[in-house]
Amino acid sequence: MEVRDCLISAPGKAILHGEHAVVHGKVALAVSLNLRTYLQLKARSDGKVCINLPNIDTFVCWELSELKQLTSFLREMQRLDAELVKRLREFIGVTNGNLDSSTSAILAFLYIYLSLFGSGLTVSVWSELPTGAGLGSSAAYSVCLAAAFLCATGNIPTPLKEWCQEDLELINSWAFQGEKIIHGNPSGVDNAVGTWGGMLRFLAGKIIPLSRVPLLRILLTNTKVPRSTKVLVARVKDKINKFPSIMIPVLDSVDAISCTCEKVLTEMTCEPITGDHYNILEELIDINQHHLNVIGVGHPSLDTLCQVTAARGLHSKLTGAGGGGCGITLLRPVILSPSVEAGTMKDLRDCGYDCWETSIGGPGVQQHFPSSVKEEIMEVLNRY
Amino acid sequence: MEVRDCLISAPGKAILHGEHAVVHGKVALAVSLNLRTYLQLKARSDGKVCINLPNIDTFVCWELSELKQLTSFLREMQRLDAELVKRLREFIGVTNGNLDSSTSAILAFLYIYLSLFGSGLTVSVWSELPTGAGLGSSAAYSVCLAAAFLCATGNIPTPLKEWCQEDLELINSWAFQGEKIIHGNPSGVDNAVGTWGGMLRFLAGKIIPLSRVPLLRILLTNTKVPRSTKVLVARVKDKINKFPSIMIPVLDSVDAISCTCEKVLTEMTCEPITGDHYNILEELIDINQHHLNVIGVGHPSLDTLCQVTAARGLHSKLTGAGGGGCGITLLRPVILSPSVEAGTMKDLRDCGYDCWETSIGGPGVQQHFPSSVKEEIMEVLNRY
Repeated sequence: MEVRDCLISAPGKAILHGEHAVVHGKVALAVSLNLRTYLQLKARSDGKVCINLPNIDTFVCWELSELKQLTSFLREMQRLDAELVKRLREFIGVTNGNLDSSTSAILAFLYIYLSLFGSGLTVSVWSELPTGAGLGSSAAYSVCLAAAFLCATGNIPTPLKEWCQEDLELINSWAFQGEKIIHGNPSGVDNAVGTWGGMLRFLAGKIIPLSRVPLLRILLTNTKVPRSTKVLVARVKDKINKFPSIMIPVLDSVDAISCTCEKVLTEMTCEPITGDHYNILEELIDINQHHLNVIGVGHPSLDTLCQVTAARGLHSKLTGAGGGGCGITLLRPVILSPSVEAGTMKDLRDCGYDCWETSIGGPGVQQHFPSSVKEEIMEVLNRY
Repeated sequence: MEVRDCLISAPGKAILHGEHAVVHGKVALAVSLNLRTYLQLKARSDGKVCINLPNIDTFVCWELSELKQLTSFLREMQRLDAELVKRLREFIGVTNGNLDSSTSAILAFLYIYLSLFGSGLTVSVWSELPTGAGLGSSAAYSVCLAAAFLCATGNIPTPLKEWCQEDLELINSWAFQGEKIIHGNPSGVDNAVGTWGGMLRFLAGKIIPLSRVPLLRILLTNTKVPRSTKVLVARVKDKINKFPSIMIPVLDSVDAISCTCEKVLTEMTCEPITGDHYNILEELIDINQHHLNVIGVGHPSLDTLCQVTAARGLHSKLTGAGGGGCGITLLRPVILSPSVEAGTMKDLRDCGYDCWETSIGGPGVQQHFPSSVKEEIMEVLNRY
């Protein structure tokens, strides 16, 4: 098998509107977050298989011969199931129930590697995304793994050609396998966003990519307040059960926010973008942030985020599970507004938060020539 | 005619839930606010009619003979109409369109005095309520005027007996006339609360007094940020027209908040009051405050009120029109909670706000013996 070296990136994910409401049958809008995960695959001929994940201090090398037993077991399996995951866990010596991010990253690597590849290589991954912050870092990783192995083995074309829908569907289906290993029962939204980019409408388990959306500049802030998605989802459910007549209309209103936002974003792709478009997007963000507080997933750290950015004329909401975690702040196009990013980011960092200037709605998985990737990222990928 | 001196008080009004939503056909709960207006009526035999309203720097005396012409004109009129108000305005020398609080207080006095009374007297009024803050100060004044004249002339009984429903209806109907002179087209809620006290359910123009409600301790805060109710009502209407699918569910949710609150308050009168009751009341306050922000009647001064009180574990919402104005903060019964009032009031005053520790749901119009009224109030009433 001829192996091509390759360099892949995939974006993270943010929920623009509809987090939590989606659990109760309402629309959610998931968007690509242009904090990207980069993966470099290099063939090697010394019979070694190495993976370097410096974000999570994970560096592992196996001899090809060690992996042989797993390959044959995998070939016998019809599909990814508990037995296989158990076997992979045994192989890497994990016996307890909970997987940390390092272990689950190794398991996902092994599964996709063994399924699609089989010879010596080094895979190095560097992500701009914080891990475990609800920003789809594991999906971006799985998408990169799937695309890299499919590309390196010639199953999908090289970067000189854009990937077609069929290629993307193949990448997405393998990435979904990786997500299953990492998360057990993922919705499939994160890997779809990592693959297609742009924006997805998510409703009652159905994922519909939206054809065209504008690229929106944002600040992404991580309050670093830890939270459990499971606990927060349960809290919302309890609140709906406690006050159904009060809460059900709020979910309906959130649904209407998602639909209104989708409509405005679609308009922005077919008519000249004006301040009015941004006024509406900002109003929707403010309203939804209030609703998220009402359903019980706010947090003082998120209130602070909203206040600090409001003091600069900017509008923020939590994204994802809430109760801490991350928030997004909409920025206007540079030509439409004075630049307030630098000052705002300083204010947010002074609160102890991590903060990135980035964008949502950008491209999904991509191949790169090394020369088109930021030097500091190539430096990290080539370090190992 | 034998004239009895009398001493009357009536409470102010706060909206507990449903402000603005009531304009769109939803339930509102209006409650008596135990910041009271006190009126002392004393007969005099020197042929003078004097009114002293030190809160608004208004001190007027007429000769009885001057008022004779008005009495005969009033007797000819079938009902309170524009012609009569015009005649009263001419009498006191007001020609321009807008009435200040002093002028409208004098007009209301003259109308009720001429309708129900006719001999020499001094009426002195002192109110604990701020004027023009949406707290029903004009209604409390009108209720006091009506009750005082009806009582002084023997149309309703003296303080040794409680007033019956019929007496209260008579007071309320005259107070409503006073409100019409002051406000043009009042809803009738403020004078009903001033008369009956307790809590009223207000829906589609219908006012239903609730039989029993618990007395709730609150802080009443006046941010002193001026606002126009008319402008705020129009703003809400515009927002509903702009985002109907988002806003109409929010009004439904507000409606459910009012109904849930009414249910909890009713329960509190028939079962032992627990912390759980207060937990729910606090949750409803927080949710409604978010909804009021969503419909566009919030204000940074109200956000500050909420934050300052939240820092002490207390829950606040705006009351009335919003956009500044007043807010209420629920306090727990002294035996259920540590005392945080003093510190909270200091914090709020440090923000430049006026702040009172008072209660809602207390009695309506009352007669007093001078000995049962706070000394400082009697001192003010007797000064003139």
